[in-house]
Order: sequence, then C-alpha cells, then structure tokens
Amino acid sequence: GRSLRHCLSDSDGLFLTAFGPFRLLAGYEGTRSNYVMSNGGGVLSSTNHLLDFLEEPIPGVGTYDDFHTIDWVREKCKDRERHRKVRMRLHLYDAWSGWLVVTLTGLASGALAGLIDISADWLNDIKEGVCLNAMWFNHEQCCWGSNETTFAERDKCPQWKSWAGLILGQEEGPGSYIMNYFMYIYWALSFALLAVLLVKVFAPYACGSGIPEIKTILSGFIIRGYLGKWTLLIKTVTLVLAVASGLSLGKEGPLVHVACCCGNIFSYLFPKYSKNEAKKREVLSAASAAGVSVAFGAPIGGVLFSLEEVSYYFPLKTLWRSFFAALVAAFVLRSINPFGNSRLVLFYVEYHTPWYLFELIPFILLGVFGGLWGAFFIKANIAWCRRRKSTRFGKYPVLEVIFVAAITAVVAFPNPYTRQNTSELIKELFTDCGPLESSQLCQYRSQMNGSKAFVDASPNKSAGPGVYTAMWQLCLALVFKIIMTIFTFGLKVPAGLFIPSMAIGAIAGRIVGIAVEQLAYYHHDWLVFREWCEVGTDCITPGLYAMVGAAACLGGVTRMTVSLVVIVFELTGGLEYIVPLMAAVMTSKWVGDAFGREGIYESHIRLNGYPFLDAKSEFTHTTLAREVMRPQRSDPPLAVLTQDDLTVEELQVIINETSYNGFPVIVSKESQRLVGFTLRRDITIAIENARRKQEGILLTSRVYFTQHAPTLPADSPRPLKLRSILDMSPFTVTDHTPMEIVVDIFRKLGLRQCLVTHNGRLLGIITKKDILRHMAQLTNQDPDNIMFN
Amino acid sequence: GRSLRHCLSDSDGLFLTAFGPFRLLAGYEGTRSNYVMSNGGGVLSSTNHLLDFLEEPIPGVGTYDDFHTIDWVREKCKDRERHRKVRMRLHLYDAWSGWLVVTLTGLASGALAGLIDISADWLNDIKEGVCLNAMWFNHEQCCWGSNETTFAERDKCPQWKSWAGLILGQEEGPGSYIMNYFMYIYWALSFALLAVLLVKVFAPYACGSGIPEIKTILSGFIIRGYLGKWTLLIKTVTLVLAVASGLSLGKEGPLVHVACCCGNIFSYLFPKYSKNEAKKREVLSAASAAGVSVAFGAPIGGVLFSLEEVSYYFPLKTLWRSFFAALVAAFVLRSINPFGNSRLVLFYVEYHTPWYLFELIPFILLGVFGGLWGAFFIKANIAWCRRRKSTRFGKYPVLEVIFVAAITAVVAFPNPYTRQNTSELIKELFTDCGPLESSQLCQYRSQMNGSKAFVDASPNKSAGPGVYTAMWQLCLALVFKIIMTIFTFGLKVPAGLFIPSMAIGAIAGRIVGIAVEQLAYYHHDWLVFREWCEVGTDCITPGLYAMVGAAACLGGVTRMTVSLVVIVFELTGGLEYIVPLMAAVMTSKWVGDAFGREGIYESHIRLNGYPFLDAKSEFTHTTLAREVMRPQRSDPPLAVLTQDDLTVEELQVIINETSYNGFPVIVSKESQRLVGFTLRRDITIAIENARRKQEGILLTSRVYFTQHAPTLPADSPRPLKLRSILDMSPFTVTDHTPMEIVVDIFRKLGLRQCLVTHNGRLLGIITKKDILRHMAQLTNQDPDNIMFN
Repeated sequence: GRSLRHCLSDSDGLFLTAFGPFRLLAGYEGTRSNYVMSNGGGVLSSTNHLLDFLEEPIPGVGTYDDFHTIDWVREKCKDRERHRKVRMRLHLYDAWSGWLVVTLTGLASGALAGLIDISADWLNDIKEGVCLNAMWFNHEQCCWGSNETTFAERDKCPQWKSWAGLILGQEEGPGSYIMNYFMYIYWALSFALLAVLLVKVFAPYACGSGIPEIKTILSGFIIRGYLGKWTLLIKTVTLVLAVASGLSLGKEGPLVHVACCCGNIFSYLFPKYSKNEAKKREVLSAASAAGVSVAFGAPIGGVLFSLEEVSYYFPLKTLWRSFFAALVAAFVLRSINPFGNSRLVLFYVEYHTPWYLFELIPFILLGVFGGLWGAFFIKANIAWCRRRKSTRFGKYPVLEVIFVAAITAVVAFPNPYTRQNTSELIKELFTDCGPLESSQLCQYRSQMNGSKAFVDASPNKSAGPGVYTAMWQLCLALVFKIIMTIFTFGLKVPAGLFIPSMAIGAIAGRIVGIAVEQLAYYHHDWLVFREWCEVGTDCITPGLYAMVGAAACLGGVTRMTVSLVVIVFELTGGLEYIVPLMAAVMTSKWVGDAFGREGIYESHIRLNGYPFLDAKSEFTHTTLAREVMRPQRSDPPLAVLTQDDLTVEELQVIINETSYNGFPVIVSKESQRLVGFTLRRDITIAIENARRKQEGILLTSRVYFTQHAPTLPADSPRPLKLRSILDMSPFTVTDHTPMEIVVDIFRKLGLRQCLVTHNGRLLGIITKKDILRHMAQLTNQDPDNIMFN
Repeated sequence: GRSLRHCLSDSDGLFLTAFGPFRLLAGYEGTRSNYVMSNGGGVLSSTNHLLDFLEEPIPGVGTYDDFHTIDWVREKCKDRERHRKVRMRLHLYDAWSGWLVVTLTGLASGALAGLIDISADWLNDIKEGVCLNAMWFNHEQCCWGSNETTFAERDKCPQWKSWAGLILGQEEGPGSYIMNYFMYIYWALSFALLAVLLVKVFAPYACGSGIPEIKTILSGFIIRGYLGKWTLLIKTVTLVLAVASGLSLGKEGPLVHVACCCGNIFSYLFPKYSKNEAKKREVLSAASAAGVSVAFGAPIGGVLFSLEEVSYYFPLKTLWRSFFAALVAAFVLRSINPFGNSRLVLFYVEYHTPWYLFELIPFILLGVFGGLWGAFFIKANIAWCRRRKSTRFGKYPVLEVIFVAAITAVVAFPNPYTRQNTSELIKELFTDCGPLESSQLCQYRSQMNGSKAFVDASPNKSAGPGVYTAMWQLCLALVFKIIMTIFTFGLKVPAGLFIPSMAIGAIAGRIVGIAVEQLAYYHHDWLVFREWCEVGTDCITPGLYAMVGAAACLGGVTRMTVSLVVIVFELTGGLEYIVPLMAAVMTSKWVGDAFGREGIYESHIRLNGYPFLDAKSEFTHTTLAREVMRPQRSDPPLAVLTQDDLTVEELQVIINETSYNGFPVIVSKESQRLVGFTLRRDITIAIENARRKQEGILLTSRVYFTQHAPTLPADSPRPLKLRSILDMSPFTVTDHTPMEIVVDIFRKLGLRQCLVTHNGRLLGIITKKDILRHMAQLTNQDPDNIMFN
C-alpha cells in the first residue's frame, strides 16, 4: 500500500473560491464539537487503528472539479496501479478495451459523418427546390433516374422542381428568379435561426469549430459537458443546419468535435478510461484522428493532424490506435458512400500532366498569398471576436447570426460560385478541364468549336467568353468569401474554418492558374514557356494551382505543415505533386509566422484565456524560477503546514483564510525543510471523513503527517493522522533553475505545480498559471487575461 | 552571465577509470608545488579578479567523452543560450542552416542510395556473366539493345555471356552448368572476403545494420566515429559487395546508417549542430527518415519510421524537416532512376481485383506466421550472437563470413529463387500474374493452352506443372532463407534485415496465396467461395498474399506497426489494401509480443549492453527511489563536497579515491542540505586551469562554491572559487518517489542523474545506469551485462 498519490494540488486557485465543501464541514463541525470523548492512553493502538483505516481510499479523493487542470503524473500512476491490481482473468478484457473503444469511436464517427454529409446535401438543395418523386432525394439523386444523359444537362430533369417552378409554375423569367431568390433567403434564414436557437437553448458548447477547446482539453484541462451527449446531439443537428444555411463555414472542424464527443461517450463504458483523465485523453487523440479522417477521407493525414495539431501527450501506443480508429471511420464512411462515387475522399482529383520547375514561382506566390491571408484573417477575426466579447454587441448572438446569414444569402445568390455548396465549388475548381467537363471554367475555344465529347488532339487553350465571365465571378466570390469568413468564424453556430479557407485559396489558385495558362498560350515564345511547353500541348493544369492555393491558405490560417501536405497528398494519391504543395505550404507558414507565430486555434485559445501551455512555442527568456515563484517580496508569506504541531482548528483557519489549492508540508517553521505536499480538497474531505467515522477527533486534536504520532501530553485528545493524503514526492526545483527548464518540465511531465527550494529550504511554489502569467508579462500582454474567464 | 550549465555528471562512472586527466594534473602539480607565492591580504580584490576570470568559459568544459551519455537538458539550454547571442545579421543564416543541412543530407542520401543500387545490381550480375559490348552494363541493361522482344526471352541476348559461354564457349550442357556454378561461388566468396577485410581493416563500425547503434546514439549516447567519414565510405563500398556476394542480407537497414553518416558529416559544417549534441540528433532523426525514404521509396513511411522506431526526442520542428529530407532524398533517387522504370518505389505493384472479407482468415494466419517467425528469429539470432561474443568462435570473423558465404552460394545456386537477387525475388512474388508475365509462377493451364500475349476472357486458374515446380522450389527457398538469415545477421559485414525478412514472408505468403487460389478454383461450390468468387473470374490475388506475408514477417522481427503499414501502403498506393495489411501486422505484433516484447533491434541493444532506456516499454514495478539510489546500506557513504571548507588537496583526494563522474555539493556535513552538483571532469579542468593561470593557488588553498569567499585567517593562501562549474539546479526527487515516475522523468527530460533527498537532506544519487541495472534485476537478468562492454 505505497502512496502513489502525487502532486495533488490544483494550480487554479481562483476557481476554488466558489467551491465550498469546507464551509459545509464547518457547519457540521459545530454540532459535533459538543460531543467530547475522553481519550486517556492508548495512543499507539488507536494510531494503528487509524493507520489501517486511513490506508483505505477515502471517497472523493483523486477526482477533479470543472475548469481544473489535471495532473498527468498522478493519472498515469493511478493507471499503472490499477493495472497491477487487475486480475489475470480480466487481463485480456482490459487489454482489449482500448481497441474496443477506438473501434466504437471510429464506427460512430464514420456513421455520423455519413449522416451529416447526406443530410447537409439534401438540406442544401432544399434551398433551391424539391424533388417531386421523392422528397428525401437531393438534386443529384433526384435526376439519377432521368433520361437526360448528356453531361451538360445532367442537373436538369423534370422531376426536380425549383421553388419558382413549384409555386409559380414557370422555371424561367425574372419573376421566377425573384421567387427563387426569395425562397433561397427564406430557407437560409430559417436554417440559421433554427441552428442558433438550438445551440443557445440546449448546448452552448456546440458552437464554433471546437478545435481550440479540444486542444485545451487534451493538454489537460477539465471542461465538463464539452464532449457530452447533448453537445454531440445538438452539434450534429445544428452542423447540418449551419452548413445548409449557406453561411461561409465548413463541417470539417466540427467533425473533429463530433468524433471527440463519440470517443468521450464510449470511454465511459470502460472504467479504465472513464476514471482516468490521462487515459481518456488517449482515446480523444484517436478520436480527433478519426474526425479528420472522415472529414477529408485521409486516414494517415488524420493521424498526423492529431499528432501535429491537437494532441499534447501522444505515446506510440496512441499512434497505432489512432491510425486504427481513423481507418475504421474512413471505411464506415466509404460503405455509407455519401458522395455516390465510392470514393473515400471529398475532392478526388486525377491530373494527367506533370508540373514543370518554372511553375514553382506561381506556387510560391500562392504560398505568399496564403500566408498573408492567414495573418490578415487571424488579426481581423480575433479583433472582431474580442469586440464581440467586450462590447454589448455580444449579447445578441441570435440577431447576429440572422444578420450575417441574411447578408450572406442576399449577396451569395446572384453569383453561381457563391450560391453553390462550398465543397462543390472547391471540387469544381480542383478538377482539370477534360473534354467531358461542362463547367463554364472550361469553355475554351477548342471546345466551343469542336464536338464536346471528342478529345481534341491539339487543344486550343485560348480562353472563351465563359472563362472570362467565370474569372470575374470568381474574383467577386473571393472578396465575398474573405469578408464573410472573418465575420462568420466565431458565431454561435457550429462553424469550421477548413472549407472556407480552402475555398479562398482554391479561387485564388484557379485565377492564377488560368492566368499562367493564358500567358503560356499567348506567349509561348517566352524563354520559360519555350523550354517546357510545346505548342499545342497542355502544359499548365489550373486545377493543380487551385489545390496548391487551397493548401497554402489553409496552412496560413492553421499553420499546419506535414499533416496538411499529407491530407492533400491523400486527395490526389500521387507523390508527384508533393513538391509544389510543400513549397506553397512552407512559404505560407513562413510568411504567416512573420506576422505572428500563432495559428487561429492558438489565438482563439488565448482570446478565451484557456490555461494552455503550448508545447510548440519555445520559451526563450532568461528568467529564473526565483523570479516567477510565489510569494514574491510584496506578497504575503507562503502558506505552509508543519508536519506534526498543528491542531485541527489551526489547519481549518489556514484553509479558510487562503484560497490556495494545496499546501506544502514542512518539518518545522525554523528548518523549512520540505516533507511533502497536500491538497486543499483532500484535507477537507479527510477531516470531514475522520470526524464522521473516527471518534475522539476534536478541534484541539493534533494533526500529524509523520509515520508515527508525536508524543503528546496525557490529557490531549486523540490525534489525527493525515499521512495518506500527503504526497511525499512533490516535484521540486531550485531557485536558480532557468525558467526554460521549468517550462520544459511542466510541458513534458504535465505538472500542475512545482515547489521551489534553495539549499534544501522551501522558498515558494510555481503553478501552471504562474508560468502562463509570467509568459504573458514577458510578451507585454495583460497577465490577467490568462485566466479562464 | 547566468550559469545555464545543468547536471554535468556522467552516469557511466566505469568508463572514467581509464581516463586520467587528473593523473596528468597530479604529476604537473608535483612540479608546481615547490613554487610558493605569498598571498597576504587582498582576498577580496583577488576574488573579484577570480570571479571575472572564471565567468569566462573554461575550454573543454561542456564536451563529452566517447561512450558517454549526453545530458539533453544541458544541451537544449546551451542551444537557447547560443540562440540569444546570435546577432541579427546572422539570424537568417542561423534559421536556414537547419534547412540547409537536411537538404544536403537528403541530396547525399539519395545520390548514395542510387549509386549503391546501380553498383549492387551490376556486381550481382557479374556473378553470372558479363556484357561483351560494355562491361559496365548489368544483365538487363546489356539486353536493352537486343532484338529479342518477346517477354519470355528478354533476358537472353547474344551480348550477355555467362561465364561458361565466355570460358568454355558453350552456354548449355552439364559442363557449362558446373563452370557457372563454380564462377558463382568464386565471385560470391571474393566479394564476401573483400567486404569483411575492408570492414575489419578500415572501419569496424561499418558492420551490421547499424540501426541498434543509431537508436542508442539518438537516445543520447556518444560513439565517436560511428557516423564518421570512414564508416560512410567503407559502409557504402562493403554494402555493395555484401549484397552482391549473395548472402542473405539486404541493403535497406544499412542505408539508414549511410544516411545518418551523411547527416552527421554535414552537421559539422554548422556550429549550431556540430557543437550541440541534442541539435545534432535532430539532424540524425531527419537523416534516418531520408534513409528509409530511399530504401523503399516511401517518404511518409520513412518519417513515421524515424518517429516510431529510431528517434528518442522528436519535436515537431524535426517532423517537418524529416519530411523534407525524406522527400529530397526520394526525388534525387528518382532522378537517378536506378530501377529503370522511373518509379520511386522498389516494388511497385498494382492489383486489379479487390479483396474479400473471407480472405482475412489467411491474412491473419500469415500474421501468426510472421509473429512466430519473428519471435523464433530473435531468440535464435540472439542466442547465436551471444555464443559468438562469449566463445572463442567470435575471434575469427573473416573465416566465419567466408564459411557462411560459401554455404550460401553452394546451396543457393541450384534453386532459381535463391540464386536471383532477393529484391527481384520479392518483386516477382508481389507481382500479380498478368497475361504478359513469363514467370514460372504464372504457368496456369489457360496460359499454356492459349496464346501468351492474349488476354483470356475467362482465365483458367488451374495450376500448371510450372506452378507446382515453383511451389517446391519456393518451399526449399523458404527453409534456406530462414536458416541462413539467422546466421547471417550479426556477421561482420553490412547486413540489413528488412529484405530477408520480407523475402521469407513473401515466399510464405505466395505459397498460401496459390493454395487459396487453387482451393477456390477446385472447390468453388464451398460456401465461402460461392458467396464471393464467380466461376471463371479471378478472385484471389496471390501477389497480395505475398505482400501481406512480407509485412507480417517484417513486423514480427522489428515490431514496427504504423510505419510498416504506411511503407507498404506507399508501395501499392491504394487505401484498399490497408485493412489486410493492418490485420496481418497487428496479429504479427501480438503473437510476437507473446513470446517477448523486444524487437530485434532492442534485443541487439541489450546484447551489446548499450545504455538505452527504452521509451516504449513501461516500467510496471512498485519500487521506490530509495531502493534504487546509491549508496545502499552496504555501500560506502556518498562522496559529497562541502561548499566552503575543503582545500584543493582534500578535493584531489576525494577525486582520486573515487571513480564517480560527479559530486553533489552540500552546505555542511551536519545539515546535508543540497547546494548543487559538479562534474569530476569540470573540477579537474578547472583546477588545472586555475593553477596554470591564477597565481597563489596552492594545495592548501580553500575551495569554495559560494558567491562570496569564506572569511579565512590572514595567513591562509588565496582561495579558489569554483562557482562557475557548479550546477545550481540539479534535479532532485524525494526518497519516496515511485521509480515509475523517476523513469518517466529520465526518459522525458533525458537526464543523466538525479539526486535523492529526504525532508530536504541529501540521501543519494540515481544515475541512468542505476536505473538500467535495477530494471535488469527486476527481470532476473544479469545486471552486470547492462554496461557497455
């Protein structure tokens, strides 16, 4: 029965002021203090009794309150302790439960993603019309049975009626255009209103992308209910509504949140995970990989995303299980087949021409654009969100959503590129112009002259009027998307950022791609083109530019690197195009980092004041532990407990007069030699427990943390042994330790606090919050913003 | 000028007994001690002088000896310190040097891999014959210009002469068979002899796969010359010879060593990396990714291999750079195009049929086979290597290589599947039987009857006599490979294990695949086949079985998981086949782990006694720091220094009488309160330095580690201040800390030693070697085997 309890204090003292078990205890104690029992001799025997009694676990010790930081070291010790106790019979079950929970998470994530994809598609088409045969068919499915077989006309079939056709009885003309316009706005507003109301009433945690909060939770923070049943249900429903409302948002980020909710819910089936916050985070890491896997159909990219972007503690065992969860989720999604093409991936593309070295210049320019866009977006969006938080304006989230949705719908409808689903827009922009392509973007002169279904041997790549129209519309769409996305991300509806960012990049990339293509066509005598482009052959693929631009913009916003390249690589499946992608993503990250090193998720974490100690950013200052620890010179002295000369009453006074979550225990006030550390929560629980179950514990009882009771006068009441709640292995550093080492220890071991000593004497304490406050001070930010608020 | 020097002791005290700078100093001191200088007053001013003097870095402090463990925390501090000092002008260069060094590493690795591939192919064909037109062409290149265009005959052309044809003038008949047999053995023995002699004479570190040593180096250990120029040169040359000699070994593992040598050599160009052992390891991690990338043409798999298998400390920045290095290497290799098919990958395969659910049963059986093979191989190979180490037998490495090469050549020649290059064998086994396939393995009845170049509409998949012959030959090849690989891995030539393991798995897999195929053909009325296989269609792909078997066997031997699946996924390029691969690899790992959790690399690390603290295996025992620390009860007391009352002479006595690499410094013998930690090496260097440069330092001079000199009698000699070599922030744990936490701290922070305290008093010390010895004791191994020997 060795005490494996380690570092039980909570670093976030402020949250405990509202938490008052001790007040309860104080009242309880008032009624008991009359009841005095004589306790002459027999100290030793009662000590033995106490010892046996206290070696039993005290209920309630070792759990966390909401908005508290977990202690990774303690959680891992608890798991190993549990592991040793598991009987052989249950050993196999125990080993398999990890695989079972990730399998279930993968299955559920895949199924929910399929459901969301199908419903969002259907609801999105509802804005434009309805299928007469079968209400539950979307536009594409409705026309599958149609006789129209030419590709250009495949979207037009008699079964599918636009709202104007249904209500006014005519499909063409200005009247029906206005009718359709009106119905589009009506449905968009209805969906947005429903979404925001559902979120507001049932599950406020369902809003946003969820990734900042998941990063914080994975770094070891408790937010009760953030990954619960209600959040899952409401987020799933409102995500469909939000996507269908036409707002400039995507469903990819929220899918990670949905998958994490599944992981959290399934982890409650197994005590191994439900009772251990560190083990639960392993499941959540796997779940986030499954989320990205279904969002993009990229299992390997999902695992790398989990590793690079969201996870904090990622042992190799988790890597393997994350990969498994991602694969299961991807295969479930594929068997649901929401896109109707038995493809796993959202934007499956195949390019037929290689890229040439000179194209690296436009690719790098796209990277610069992506980095600039990312930096601008982060600054603008954070400024707007801060305004929302700080002014009266943030009080009306429903009105805000309605307002943004209305503007979006009004502006989006006239432009075909903004009216359509953003995912479809990206798909169209990524796709290369083949002979069967009916898109306006592919109206080259060769196709206008020749037969559409015939592959021209030497394609005339001179742009036709359709391409010029498309270019103008794309430019307008670009401006529209840029503005709307800034105001949309942060609304109180589920809102992902991946798809809008990619759309912006894809539009910019396609524009650049077509420009380069036309340049190569009209100026094929230029040196760069003469070298590589033979006359009459395709040498520029505008679709590839769109893909590179999308990756660059997404990289600029999120500052992802490897995982982003791998996700896009899994879309195309060819190593061929990795070099352009890497060039653009690297440029984008460097340009973005020049304006501020934080990605959008880190910025939102900081805006919301979550206690997140970023594992990526380096601590480069030269301060010492001495300068960060509390108490500093102006502070009151450190609240400490002595190991054997406090009474219950004195202990209560110390606890009532301070708000710290834990107290160091020392040998004596004179020597200041450190014995251990004990938690406020544990002391209150243990005293309450002792008073209820042990007789003879009075206010004047001596409290001791040593192995044997101190020698007391014969008439003193029975002493109270609290050794079992004493953490005898607190982490300590000396006052001369550079803060960079202290920060490293906190990050790598997941500490909540660390005691500071000088020549063996206790000097002070450093908590995670002290470090965050110190780092904010060093970068000239307001340190009081660092707390959770 | 804050002291960032941290934990300077070395844990491997034993190595220092031979290292005698102090003996040198003692002799030096003998000549100097006559030279006495009066040093009356002026203590304070000289102290100030000393202070300024000692704040300058003392040359030699902060480097490591060969076979010593590095201190990650100190190295990282050093780098940050350096970073702060870099002037703005050099900042850009500093930031880019990391990218530059990985780019150079990637370029060099790719180029060397191409060179090795081409030379090994050519030298391998020399064993069979020679190209008359051009000596430097291998068999395939020689026949490119030939008129023979049918696929069956493509390897036969008049330009290529077998040795019998050249010497006897006839290609056929028993005489020429014996001649060819003889020449094959002759060349094989010559290559093997040359390889082992080169290794023995010039670079003993060039032998083996190198991965165990690279893992140890990456975990923070110094082996001088292991990644040096000579090793690189000799390893490259002998690798070609060893592969060409026909021994059962591969070049994939050694390519990782070659790439790491490149990384190490290029890191010497940049002081940022050459002077910092922790930063150098980031380059080495990237280099190992580049090595696997060129070995298999799998850049993403290479990065995951580096992450999962070899690296110890892998920050995200390294992930990104590793990915870049892997890509650069892969593209250089592709532009060299050693395989003549402009493919990046070694075994490019495309399958045209999907797999069915019932096939998971044979796939899992292959996984079981892989796991059993892995466990058996590890046990047998380690037993054999231990015998080689411990008996007289290991004294004759050259004879052993010749003997093994002779047996291999004699047995291998008659069987076409063992005679050919192992990589080609694997390629043939992976390849599906198409209509153009001329292999014996594809002689089905349909092809024997019909025209060879004509695709039969309903292939008759009944095996012909060629298939039956091939099956027998494959069975013999399997037994041969299993036996020879056990004796080959560990010879004193460069020897990789990937290719032989994959070959064994591919043979087993192909045999199983053909068996299942024939079963499906003859028993297509069975329930499982009736459900999925229509009569007359291909439903079993024996090549896929070979691939799954190869992955399973490689997984069984190395216990790799995700990286292995990703490497094989990159070979096929289809997510389709990931599920069979995962099923087999997971089964293989579980079955293998049931017989012993260590992979072959960890086993060799343990066999060689490298101080490697595995980050993957969990410490599950319940011992406390108290039980592991030294001194235990029977030991002599801990050697400590007091902060201000030792003389130079007393200090020298302590250093001479002990062999510890470092000493804790305490306030006084009575209080035992810890002040800091100082290194043996630093003390000797500092005293020598002071005696040479500072006047008035005698044997009776007082040594002090405090900020201010102690008050001394007026006639005492000038004191020596050693505060600058004192590490004032040693890591400490309490004696009650569970060892699992201590092990965690050592792993995650990369410590060399940790001091143990009880209630603020110093009790003892725990070094990395103490932990390894303790872990060996707990698993009933001989603890003395744990040292490097």
